[in-house]
Amino acid sequence: MREFELIGSLRERLRPTRPDTRLGIGDDAAILAPPPGHEIVVTTDALIAGRHFPRDTPAADIGFKSVAVNLSDLGAMGADPAWLTIALAAPTLCEDWCHAFIDGVLDAIAGWDVDIVGGDTTKSDALTVSITALGTVPQGSALRRGAARAGDLVAVTGTLGDAAAGLACWTHRDQAGADEQALIARLTRPSARPGARLRGVVHAAVDVSDGLLADLGHILASSEVGAVIDVDALPASPALGRFAADATTRRRLQATGGDDYELCVTLAPADLGRACAVLDCPLTVIGHIDGGAGLRLTDAAGRALDHELFSQPGWDHFDGR
Amino acid sequence: MREFELIGSLRERLRPTRPDTRLGIGDDAAILAPPPGHEIVVTTDALIAGRHFPRDTPAADIGFKSVAVNLSDLGAMGADPAWLTIALAAPTLCEDWCHAFIDGVLDAIAGWDVDIVGGDTTKSDALTVSITALGTVPQGSALRRGAARAGDLVAVTGTLGDAAAGLACWTHRDQAGADEQALIARLTRPSARPGARLRGVVHAAVDVSDGLLADLGHILASSEVGAVIDVDALPASPALGRFAADATTRRRLQATGGDDYELCVTLAPADLGRACAVLDCPLTVIGHIDGGAGLRLTDAAGRALDHELFSQPGWDHFDGR
Repeated sequence: MREFELIGSLRERLRPTRPDTRLGIGDDAAILAPPPGHEIVVTTDALIAGRHFPRDTPAADIGFKSVAVNLSDLGAMGADPAWLTIALAAPTLCEDWCHAFIDGVLDAIAGWDVDIVGGDTTKSDALTVSITALGTVPQGSALRRGAARAGDLVAVTGTLGDAAAGLACWTHRDQAGADEQALIARLTRPSARPGARLRGVVHAAVDVSDGLLADLGHILASSEVGAVIDVDALPASPALGRFAADATTRRRLQATGGDDYELCVTLAPADLGRACAVLDCPLTVIGHIDGGAGLRLTDAAGRALDHELFSQPGWDHFDGR
Repeated sequence: MREFELIGSLRERLRPTRPDTRLGIGDDAAILAPPPGHEIVVTTDALIAGRHFPRDTPAADIGFKSVAVNLSDLGAMGADPAWLTIALAAPTLCEDWCHAFIDGVLDAIAGWDVDIVGGDTTKSDALTVSITALGTVPQGSALRRGAARAGDLVAVTGTLGDAAAGLACWTHRDQAGADEQALIARLTRPSARPGARLRGVVHAAVDVSDGLLADLGHILASSEVGAVIDVDALPASPALGRFAADATTRRRLQATGGDDYELCVTLAPADLGRACAVLDCPLTVIGHIDGGAGLRLTDAAGRALDHELFSQPGWDHFDGR
């Protein structure tokens, strides 16, 4: 199948549905009409086989995750996702593989009002999926990393550490029990959280892609504030609780494991109830922002914990991890 | 150098200058404020070493070309380029290489009012540059492939075939004379044409990335019209004229060579003078649109030419070229 034919058959499955998508895939570029009074939020993330997902990940899961991580970035800005472009480079681009990939893409945007408006497919020695996601926010209302204030609570959506535990289960996934399958599903099909609902409710937000400590560190650096975090308060799924019964291992997975795509936010204590009410997932308070230096970790009893216990500071692609 | 430090030093060089860039690189996403009454035009192109440029292309040329091909797509829509995101995946991402790459990126946007607002860098087995370009057009004024009308002239900017000839010179570029160097420069540093100036002047537009016959074919298919093209009227640079003195070779390079990034447009004969006046490069009439079937080729004497003479119908990545 030649490129143009394959693209044509994929395009059929990606027909735009938003009224403000003036032109989707098929010309030199797409034409979008953002709502008046809104700003555009744009992010780009590339996912590479062997680095961002195991090389033997099914095509549909690759499609799903590639989209979800970009929707997660929009959520961390408080944006309503609207449009995606997808550049796919792969060693073999057979029809079945591409359609399975699109199955995953469509699964990931189900429930969101999102159109795929651009695409590019090329042969390459390495499987790379580069996605650009565009969302909208009413002017001036995006959530920024630099908006945390002393006195804010620090809270996270959902549960942490599942994806890192899922990665540990990956090689023996054929024998995985129910807990391990649940953890693996968090790795392969992460949920992007609806951060747009938190506009006007929380101050700063970031998504947990590189690990909580690394990503919260971005908020602290941008906001020029410090934080105290109770690592025993980090929310754990039941599956993780059973998988990592040892507290040290569990704490490390939760504090430094990447790929959970939960949102970490800071907010005024008075707004906690409102934040919980607008979300469709749990929101757990894990500490507070103060004027101190950097990030200080404690256990449930308030005893200071050494950062060395969490020596893996999140993902840093250039270090060869 | 760790990823975050390298990104920090690159970001210093990519500070936004547009007043409507509310937030550039450094948060989960960028924030853009398109002008009221305008639509957003968005395109994504991925360039891969060994497919879109020779593997031994200097880093700065890779940066330049990756940007130029995306600006060219915006030009083909009649859009004013405004913002770019760049996802770079490479086997080694040393500081010198990355800064040379950014040198080329900055060269390519010089003279355009464009900000780099998103970036992603990752290690990968294959060098892949994925760029998303965003531009703006007054509502409803984008140039589309489907707007050609019977009676239109077909015209192209600049000259055709240079980049394909440059590729033929690539392996012996150390011994290249002035003509060959000029041809190679068209391959490595293509000029994106200012298609925004043609809004309201031409009907349909496409950029010549895959070869004139292939790209004009998109206009004909979208517009449901035919065309007659005089292949002897295709504009040739002096360097190409000397490099390919044989008419058959020259015609083939001009009609099917990819990577020139000229614009091919259709326009009412009465608007030709206006189109020439707004451009900063030559515009050459090469044929006309009619109600006939598909694309018919002639020589200067009006004799029909067999398409088989141009058997290479442009780039199609899935065919292994």
